[in-house]
Amino acid sequence: MPVTRVTDRPATPLLDTIHIPADLRKLSEHQVKQVAEELRAETISAVSVTGGHLGAGLGVIELTTALHYVFDTPADRIIWDVGHQAYPHKILTGRRDRIRTLRQGGGLSGFTKRSESEYDPFGAAHSSTSISAGLGMAVARDLDGGRNHVIAVIGDGAMSAGMAYEAMNNAGARHERLIVILNDNDMSIAPPVGAMSAYLARLASGKTYLKLRDIGKQLTKSLGPTIDRTVTRAVEHARGFVTGGTLFEELGFYYVGPIDGHNLDHLLPVLKNVRDADFGPILVHVVTQKGKGYGPAEETEDKLHAVAKFDVVTGTQVKAKANAPSYTKVFGESLVKEAAKDEKIVAITAAMPSGTGVDIFEKVYPARTFDVGIAEQHAVTFAAGLATEGYKPFCAIYSTFLQRAYDQVVHDVAIQNLPVRFPIDRAGLVGADGATHAGSFDVAFLGCLPNMTIMAAADEAELVHMVATAAVHDSGPIAFRYPRGEGVGVDLPAEGVPLAIGKGRIVREGSRIALLSLGTRLAECLKAAEDLGALGLSTTVADARFAKPLDIDLVTRLAREHEVLVTVEEGSIGGFGSFVLHALADRGLLDGACRVRSMVLPDVYLDHDKPEALYARCGLDARGIVAKVFEALGREAVRAGTGALRA
Amino acid sequence: MPVTRVTDRPATPLLDTIHIPADLRKLSEHQVKQVAEELRAETISAVSVTGGHLGAGLGVIELTTALHYVFDTPADRIIWDVGHQAYPHKILTGRRDRIRTLRQGGGLSGFTKRSESEYDPFGAAHSSTSISAGLGMAVARDLDGGRNHVIAVIGDGAMSAGMAYEAMNNAGARHERLIVILNDNDMSIAPPVGAMSAYLARLASGKTYLKLRDIGKQLTKSLGPTIDRTVTRAVEHARGFVTGGTLFEELGFYYVGPIDGHNLDHLLPVLKNVRDADFGPILVHVVTQKGKGYGPAEETEDKLHAVAKFDVVTGTQVKAKANAPSYTKVFGESLVKEAAKDEKIVAITAAMPSGTGVDIFEKVYPARTFDVGIAEQHAVTFAAGLATEGYKPFCAIYSTFLQRAYDQVVHDVAIQNLPVRFPIDRAGLVGADGATHAGSFDVAFLGCLPNMTIMAAADEAELVHMVATAAVHDSGPIAFRYPRGEGVGVDLPAEGVPLAIGKGRIVREGSRIALLSLGTRLAECLKAAEDLGALGLSTTVADARFAKPLDIDLVTRLAREHEVLVTVEEGSIGGFGSFVLHALADRGLLDGACRVRSMVLPDVYLDHDKPEALYARCGLDARGIVAKVFEALGREAVRAGTGALRA
Ligand SMILES: [Mg+2]
Ligand SMILES: [Mg+2]
Repeated sequence: MPVTRVTDRPATPLLDTIHIPADLRKLSEHQVKQVAEELRAETISAVSVTGGHLGAGLGVIELTTALHYVFDTPADRIIWDVGHQAYPHKILTGRRDRIRTLRQGGGLSGFTKRSESEYDPFGAAHSSTSISAGLGMAVARDLDGGRNHVIAVIGDGAMSAGMAYEAMNNAGARHERLIVILNDNDMSIAPPVGAMSAYLARLASGKTYLKLRDIGKQLTKSLGPTIDRTVTRAVEHARGFVTGGTLFEELGFYYVGPIDGHNLDHLLPVLKNVRDADFGPILVHVVTQKGKGYGPAEETEDKLHAVAKFDVVTGTQVKAKANAPSYTKVFGESLVKEAAKDEKIVAITAAMPSGTGVDIFEKVYPARTFDVGIAEQHAVTFAAGLATEGYKPFCAIYSTFLQRAYDQVVHDVAIQNLPVRFPIDRAGLVGADGATHAGSFDVAFLGCLPNMTIMAAADEAELVHMVATAAVHDSGPIAFRYPRGEGVGVDLPAEGVPLAIGKGRIVREGSRIALLSLGTRLAECLKAAEDLGALGLSTTVADARFAKPLDIDLVTRLAREHEVLVTVEEGSIGGFGSFVLHALADRGLLDGACRVRSMVLPDVYLDHDKPEALYARCGLDARGIVAKVFEALGREAVRAGTGALRA
Repeated sequence: MPVTRVTDRPATPLLDTIHIPADLRKLSEHQVKQVAEELRAETISAVSVTGGHLGAGLGVIELTTALHYVFDTPADRIIWDVGHQAYPHKILTGRRDRIRTLRQGGGLSGFTKRSESEYDPFGAAHSSTSISAGLGMAVARDLDGGRNHVIAVIGDGAMSAGMAYEAMNNAGARHERLIVILNDNDMSIAPPVGAMSAYLARLASGKTYLKLRDIGKQLTKSLGPTIDRTVTRAVEHARGFVTGGTLFEELGFYYVGPIDGHNLDHLLPVLKNVRDADFGPILVHVVTQKGKGYGPAEETEDKLHAVAKFDVVTGTQVKAKANAPSYTKVFGESLVKEAAKDEKIVAITAAMPSGTGVDIFEKVYPARTFDVGIAEQHAVTFAAGLATEGYKPFCAIYSTFLQRAYDQVVHDVAIQNLPVRFPIDRAGLVGADGATHAGSFDVAFLGCLPNMTIMAAADEAELVHMVATAAVHDSGPIAFRYPRGEGVGVDLPAEGVPLAIGKGRIVREGSRIALLSLGTRLAECLKAAEDLGALGLSTTVADARFAKPLDIDLVTRLAREHEVLVTVEEGSIGGFGSFVLHALADRGLLDGACRVRSMVLPDVYLDHDKPEALYARCGLDARGIVAKVFEALGREAVRAGTGALRA
């Protein structure tokens, strides 16, 4: 079966007439339905070429179309929470011509992005930010005396994050006209969609809405004096129960819904009513299906949440053949092995079981696995609570999402010196997800904390040992970072062996140049050492293994015994390189003959592209490392004839 | 009126017999009431001597007593959220003999602390962590097959934080026996306390509890077939409405309350019922009054939340005479002045209007002031939303609490380069509040972020200029940090003048030694320069003003023209000193004659004590700076006769 054939573009006669949303608004409601169908076909076609997030976008085809039809974008602000469902939005908002560049280097971002379009009033990628941002925009509008609308579209999963609650809690106590659309694609009970409930919702969003409580009072009266105040109040709130929106109402929102998010006959009138209401905030509960309208997505368990390039007819994805297991998988399998030896080991994930490899652990140890939802703050302090009782929690959170739990790491874990283990996946640059997902800062923001131990794996075998190290390190918190993607292909040890805390290793002995690597740049350091050696510069390569505590003996020896010492890492300033510089300065080792340089990620946010391309651009590859060594050696070295490589 | 007289200790015959909670549990319920009275008197007496948090502790006197009477502490875990209400708890749990050392150097912490007592199963100080920690403990207990209880006591204010919601959301979907006590001392409506509601609560917590829904069904039946399914369901949920707990019930908690938290006749039976229930999680809604039982507290608007030493009879506080306005006040007043010139300036606080000085702004510009509650994450992204619409938000959050919003600073502000202003109060060491409140890490965790600009004020006049600088800096985010407490007493400029971005200043010209200060250590640097000068070491002192962007010209000049360059800051490794070292290394300026040293806070959490005492202990005072200079100069300098000071 040929899975790689290029599919024809779908026929999209109406969509072809839409360059910006204003074009859409010229059409009749009947035509809008056809636009939605064409938009779905175009989305599938585009993602089949680029790969990316598919299921979420397909779930909001009708909602996207309806929003741009009913609201006056870009004057009205639509904020897509997370933003990975915004491909159809991009197609409708002037970016269709570039939609097949999604997530490619130089192409469209896989998320909303302010710099990309005036139709993206707020960039996203991490979840649960939209209500806060939207409330800020609504307040600004009212301070300005403006009349535009602000609409935040947020998923049910994103609602589990504390940030969304904080925003609801604040918005509900205020009176700005803010529209929150709860895009609910995960109702555990069969969703009460259909004509009747859509009718109720339309009623609720229309003029009769505000009178429902009065109706409740009337109803109570007619039931007579036998029912007490309890029942009276209950009935007054009855609408909330019909619709399940009581929680939102108690948080101060007007609740509308649930309505069928794939039925434009329901969506359009409700959104119009909501638009024309002169009160707020309003929450519209829209029920959708992830992957809607594309058979292969609807039939797959994950609704084709994120895909590689695929064949449109069959849904078969074109997955690149892996040369080595992913770090994620190595972590998950190693943790399973450690857990077999120690029943106190438990695993925690914040709604990312497969992304973190915790799903591998869960299959073997379901009772020792905890998925707390999109709730990184809670995840970390929950782990801290487990640690106080003698458990050994592995709290697996991506580098960039650990930022969400920074205070919990500081206040609940590090200050109390509790042995929570932090496996940090997606350390360093991540590729197609871009700047929002780059794990650039963890060594800096964790390394400044007393009591923290921080490791970085140079390859997948090292990761196995680091999992074992973390398992036995019970005297305080310990983190270990590793990149997205597959390992370098080294043999995996049968069993992890705990490393000596704070000890690095010499990987290659040399005499004149020293390269001190933290993490998977080690391979590039070794290549650079080859190149330097070929040019007559004998080069030592060391793997620090630990960013903290620093291997002072190793660092001292490297500085004392070499002319040049270069640190290399996949992280920002303020991390490993800074710790080395500080340690050397403290010991007077910067005052001598050794020239020390620190290579870190540049002080800019890097757009999405292949990690290797980005690292090369940053000079964090063998070529860049060699260049840095020559820069440190200076003109004399070049004159001495060892600078040939620079030419 | 003599306000400083030493008050006599209260007579506490029963309390005197209680050394640990087990002693309390030997008493009769009648005696427990007297214990509570004596505990209140002892708390007031102790805080009158030490100062500290008073109102919160007085509000939980009966609750504290009841919890230790009903539960088997320390086997049962009581987690006090925030922990500033835990003084009475400390008195009952073996720490009464040290209670008059609260918050003094070497004395008891003003918060709960694991290292202080086995009765403190989880340390606190930042709010809203208790439910997460408690759920971790409850899960650990169940994994172990244990039978102990876990009780988290959390205030209504702390419930506004997303973290508490994340924990509720997770706990409510699980079935561990976890008891959350909502200590509600801020009901906007008159609290429905009293015998009747306590009776209902006791009922609800007793054996009949689980049958209430059945009763609802019976009731509905008896009303006949005229009422539809809507009303039936409403009545089934009626108990929630009686008590206002529907929100908690929708989050999966069994809700009990509200009950009068000062009436032991209500508290004891309810807590016993809750203790003996074999299901969970349960939320007990307890209504209390902050400052209860102490006239001067009850009569004060802030209920004597935090006090200096005071006279027990009159409540008059002994406040040290200030020599200069506090940085907080200077910030608030400067912002008012800037706001008069620019109507786009708005101020945001996360439930700390007076702590941050935003209350000063609010008095003049109430419509431009936003208190979002304990919700730092939302505060920052709300500010980002305002910034997208052209507003100039000053989002005033303490250094340590800004950790709560780190991802929002990265993802919503810095990546999008939105001009949110971050006034960072409580930068550096803070004194009596200890390690949890120390603002040690902000330069490190913000300085690694591209697009950030970071200033630190050397004195209160500098702060005025930095507020002006932030007001006009509209091209990206900008932060400025300043310490807790009063300024150094310099004259304040009539008007703030924007500083040149990324430019420091030479404060004193010298030739051999250079001291480069960031922040208020500048005064100690100047003292050190005097001492060094007296010893024949001509010393330049510079104020960097900016941690980022770094004044490369200044740093280069200092390194090139001096034998020794020492950076000094009130922050951790990975911050300003690291940026200087990195910049110098990059430019080859560490390879030459200048010896560079970086003085930062040590890699330990420092217990509470006076900031100046702590800084001296860390070597971050004039004496320590001089010592560091001599250490850098080395033995030769000492031999040359300039090392006299070291002796
Ligand atoms: Mg969902
Ligand atoms: Mg309160």
